[in-house]
Amino acid sequence: MRQKEGGVTAAKGFCAAGAEAEIKYKNRMDMALIYSQVPCRVAGTFTSNVVKAAPVLWDKDIVENSPYAQAVVVNSGIANACTGKQGMECCEKEAKCAGELLGIPADSVLVASTGVIGMQIPEDRILQGIRKLAAAKTDTLEAGLDAAKAIMTTDTVHKQIAVETVLGGKTVTLGGMCKGSGMIHPNMCTMLAFITTDANISKKMLQKALSEDIVDTFNMISVDGDTSTNDTLLVLANGLAGNEEITAEGPDYGTFCEALHYVTTYLAKKMAGDGEGATCLFETKVVGAATKEDARLLAKSVICSSLTKAAVFGHDANWGRILCALGYSGARFDPEKVDIYFQGSSGRIHIFGNGTACDYSEEKATKILSDPEVTVLADMHMGDAEATAWGCDLSYEYVKINADYRS
Amino acid sequence: MRQKEGGVTAAKGFCAAGAEAEIKYKNRMDMALIYSQVPCRVAGTFTSNVVKAAPVLWDKDIVENSPYAQAVVVNSGIANACTGKQGMECCEKEAKCAGELLGIPADSVLVASTGVIGMQIPEDRILQGIRKLAAAKTDTLEAGLDAAKAIMTTDTVHKQIAVETVLGGKTVTLGGMCKGSGMIHPNMCTMLAFITTDANISKKMLQKALSEDIVDTFNMISVDGDTSTNDTLLVLANGLAGNEEITAEGPDYGTFCEALHYVTTYLAKKMAGDGEGATCLFETKVVGAATKEDARLLAKSVICSSLTKAAVFGHDANWGRILCALGYSGARFDPEKVDIYFQGSSGRIHIFGNGTACDYSEEKATKILSDPEVTVLADMHMGDAEATAWGCDLSYEYVKINADYRS
Repeated sequence: MRQKEGGVTAAKGFCAAGAEAEIKYKNRMDMALIYSQVPCRVAGTFTSNVVKAAPVLWDKDIVENSPYAQAVVVNSGIANACTGKQGMECCEKEAKCAGELLGIPADSVLVASTGVIGMQIPEDRILQGIRKLAAAKTDTLEAGLDAAKAIMTTDTVHKQIAVETVLGGKTVTLGGMCKGSGMIHPNMCTMLAFITTDANISKKMLQKALSEDIVDTFNMISVDGDTSTNDTLLVLANGLAGNEEITAEGPDYGTFCEALHYVTTYLAKKMAGDGEGATCLFETKVVGAATKEDARLLAKSVICSSLTKAAVFGHDANWGRILCALGYSGARFDPEKVDIYFQGSSGRIHIFGNGTACDYSEEKATKILSDPEVTVLADMHMGDAEATAWGCDLSYEYVKINADYRS
Repeated sequence: MRQKEGGVTAAKGFCAAGAEAEIKYKNRMDMALIYSQVPCRVAGTFTSNVVKAAPVLWDKDIVENSPYAQAVVVNSGIANACTGKQGMECCEKEAKCAGELLGIPADSVLVASTGVIGMQIPEDRILQGIRKLAAAKTDTLEAGLDAAKAIMTTDTVHKQIAVETVLGGKTVTLGGMCKGSGMIHPNMCTMLAFITTDANISKKMLQKALSEDIVDTFNMISVDGDTSTNDTLLVLANGLAGNEEITAEGPDYGTFCEALHYVTTYLAKKMAGDGEGATCLFETKVVGAATKEDARLLAKSVICSSLTKAAVFGHDANWGRILCALGYSGARFDPEKVDIYFQGSSGRIHIFGNGTACDYSEEKATKILSDPEVTVLADMHMGDAEATAWGCDLSYEYVKINADYRS
């Protein structure tokens, strides 16, 4: 497997486009299209929030009940959440409009929205945007980049990746894009992420690969603990790579999962590191936990702790907050046995062991905490389960962005 | 029942004191003593964090195994958490020193600490502090106030209250004090709170009253979602009011619980409203929930949402975040049925109903959100259970305080 250039148009047969539709933002692209030249198997995971945005309900229905999907229409600016009947009608109109223009059934058009909750999407603008997208779509890498940029809200950088691997002698590509960067605490999936592949894989195995993957990737990131109403992760597989169809577990399925995991891990980490107001990616790796579930709880508890996140922002080695967060995670362990380390590109230091502080250099700790990627390594000495979680620090900028997000 | 002046020295037979011991802070009182002239029944609840500070372990043992307690020694500045064997020995020395000076057994001396995790308490200073406290203790209201001030860390105001009620023809007083204001997300109890009473009540009924009360008071507040290693709530009852001993449920027990609830609610709200960096008390009242547990989950989810807290700080009526937080709370409900209101001293507005936004005035919403106490009222229309939770907004100041708390 190797990483290559591009995003959602890297795999064979996928087109994309970005367009300015003025849904809420002006003078920037705010709509994106992904389109496959042939029908795709589709898998998806969605928010576990009881309050589900209209596009989530629309897509869930397609993922669960349609054999194929062929296009995804996305807008940023307005989330189409808490919008009642009018919101559902908007999804239907979007899919119908795109279906007619692309010559495909409306129920093979997925839709996704991100932005302010509670506002209605202006119908004329979104339909006009779809017309622009349908006219502009191409299979170039630039088109994929346009799409990745168009779905951004408070993100500071676009997020895309592509990888190439070999399945049954055929070169297969996976490409993906996603956006953050607030209301990020995915539960069953993340804000908005789209992955395309030309792999030939059955719908059942595609969904299995995705559902098992997210537990250790998108579900292990958090920016602010708020599980969005719009979390959507879709994978479209059009089979154009020509490999023998993957219909069961085996070496090809394993290779596909490995490539998928590379893509989802990359995108999830990018989303965490570009969390609202973030100045660094904050990673917590737990090893030696009693169970895998304990390892996940422990790692996630640390990256979700507001106090720890604020200390990382201040480059302050206040490790007591880390131990405190491990302690209230819900996992069982013996505080006397835990070893805690800080590590970054500046090095690594042992900070806590034998139930008390180690004799470490505050200066070195501050240096490590000033790195662009800061890692806490916690060895629980309770077993051999591991997990990693990704978040970011808590800065003034996070408060600023969210004190007045709507204006 | 009526509220009266004072705090922990308001009830008969209770003395207190504050002293400067330079545990970590300089030029301010940082140690407090509560002392009863006669032995007290004691009840307590403690942090559910796996990582428990040494004083928590010390006090839990006394509350569970000793028939009586008679004094509490508290310090601020250093939490004596994650301090291993040396930390436990410090508790023992504190209790022994106080016991000798006060002429009571060491195992009737409770200890509590709050401040930085991981540092060792300087032994000479804390013992010197205890000597000052023992010499200074009096039963005046001023002494209670000194104690309430001495236990503060990042609190901006001291927190105390006293109430008077009648049990079996005898006037009974309850007084209390507590401190916040970060790492506040109590689970089984709160940071540090101490309640004294001259009521005559059995140890069993005192613990029952306390354990049942905190579920709807201290356990319903949150400042930052971080459950401390030191959470301690103690109630000392010395029986000097002379009422017939409460040994079972009945009218007297009910009256006692009512007075206790008044004190704990007052202290819990004060703690939430004075959360680190807070500019307002943020209350969420849920009515019409299917079950009491659902009501609690829903109310707490809203006051814990970073995005909602930041919007309250910005006086921005971003109600979508409230609905989102209700949605991921874990409670079941139908989003189409929910009514949401904002209310404050400036009035009340209906903001969400029938699955979409109401036609409300943004100007009025902003006015209400600028009140010193902001309430979200959510009617779930699923049943008749209610609960209220208290938190605060999320401000720049919270980040500032916690980015560099140790220096």
